[in-house]
Amino acid sequence: MNVLKLGGSVITNKEKPKTADRATIERLAEEIALSRGEPLVLVHGGGSFGHPLAEKFKLTEGFKEASQFLGFSETHRAMVELNDMIIDALISRGVAAFPLPPSSFIITANGRIKTLDIQVLKKALKKGFTPVLHGDTVLDSHKGFSILSGDQLSARLALELKTTRLIFGVDVDGIYTSNPKLNPDARLLESLSLSEARNSAEIGRSTAIDVTGGMLGKIYEALPVVEAGIPVLILNAKKPHNIFKALRGESVVGTILRR
Amino acid sequence: MNVLKLGGSVITNKEKPKTADRATIERLAEEIALSRGEPLVLVHGGGSFGHPLAEKFKLTEGFKEASQFLGFSETHRAMVELNDMIIDALISRGVAAFPLPPSSFIITANGRIKTLDIQVLKKALKKGFTPVLHGDTVLDSHKGFSILSGDQLSARLALELKTTRLIFGVDVDGIYTSNPKLNPDARLLESLSLSEARNSAEIGRSTAIDVTGGMLGKIYEALPVVEAGIPVLILNAKKPHNIFKALRGESVVGTILRR
Repeated sequence: MNVLKLGGSVITNKEKPKTADRATIERLAEEIALSRGEPLVLVHGGGSFGHPLAEKFKLTEGFKEASQFLGFSETHRAMVELNDMIIDALISRGVAAFPLPPSSFIITANGRIKTLDIQVLKKALKKGFTPVLHGDTVLDSHKGFSILSGDQLSARLALELKTTRLIFGVDVDGIYTSNPKLNPDARLLESLSLSEARNSAEIGRSTAIDVTGGMLGKIYEALPVVEAGIPVLILNAKKPHNIFKALRGESVVGTILRR
Repeated sequence: MNVLKLGGSVITNKEKPKTADRATIERLAEEIALSRGEPLVLVHGGGSFGHPLAEKFKLTEGFKEASQFLGFSETHRAMVELNDMIIDALISRGVAAFPLPPSSFIITANGRIKTLDIQVLKKALKKGFTPVLHGDTVLDSHKGFSILSGDQLSARLALELKTTRLIFGVDVDGIYTSNPKLNPDARLLESLSLSEARNSAEIGRSTAIDVTGGMLGKIYEALPVVEAGIPVLILNAKKPHNIFKALRGESVVGTILRR
């Protein structure tokens, strides 16, 4: 079984609010449909649908003022709009997608998943559905509400379901020695050991590893998954065929984190 | 606290597949926004979004063949499409709507609600959100999957939440002595006792009560609610101001079922 997280920067245009990258969504739905065999849980990020609104209403900070409630609703609605597109792309290719919006069954405590009833998800998987989840606005038992990242969610699901692998589809080829967009000498790390990953996550910056963008968060969430013996792959989902190959267990250019 | 169920025939055009009655949706959202005070749980039916697809794929009968899985996904997706419109209409009027698609947290057993974790719903209500649910495709522990009606769901929620009242907004004025569309002498029953309601639900037809359309199902679901001392109102949601008044506890033309 695979858990695949598709980053918000893969499926949306991060520069323009509420702009989906339709061509990439269609291509990825096609790769998922063609790769079928192993059961799959798909998680996607919010990109330009979730982040600008979550920021506008300061949802990550939790409850501060009444106007945030409507902001919570608006932000969730934008995530559903993006999710609808992905569900449509999957259904039109014969994938029996089963949307599971996290806000309807997950409660966090200070931003970390506390209540997570995965009965429906397990049952849906067993029947052959493809559960589709996403980063979402959620109720939080400490601060009122919070934002649950797709990274945290996918790592937790990989652990709960003891999957074969956890795949992070991002918009770069993997983890580099330094920022490849700034440094022409940046080198892609094909693999990262648990201790290397742990060091970079603990220090929060590293002389040997580029932790810009969302990479630090991914490494941080990946740690318990790698510790549990589940390999974590970080690869470029903007490049055609990568997701298809990774879902089939074939080798792909990228970074693999393992124990 | 109110539980309001809006019938599919109120918010959609039942004759044409996937056709919403946008004007009615906007008007009802306005009445809900204006009536605010008491907490509200809103449940809506599927009308021409849910029923034709559920029928096409024989979802009520449960699992028969593999093609139904995609049918399940398509039917749920259509319900989400209708739900999205209602959520948008509420948000645009300042109502912090909190969609809770039943398929993500309810499992039925032979079509009756078995697993129902209302932790999130209760927490959302407490914070001042307006939870919005709908009739839905759900997983079923006996027959694979099933259709959960908005009638069953709203009655169950009224019981679980011990609400002030349960309101069924339909496209007729209430329960009649005979079918008002066929019989000009049909008389509206302003109130119905528990025993009268129980008799008509048990016999499945009645010489004194019109049980055509979805009325029998509503009376059947209403029985345990009425038994618990919660009055059930059946009224015409197609007529302006009725929902506004009923939500505020004002008297409205219709049928009231009470112990």
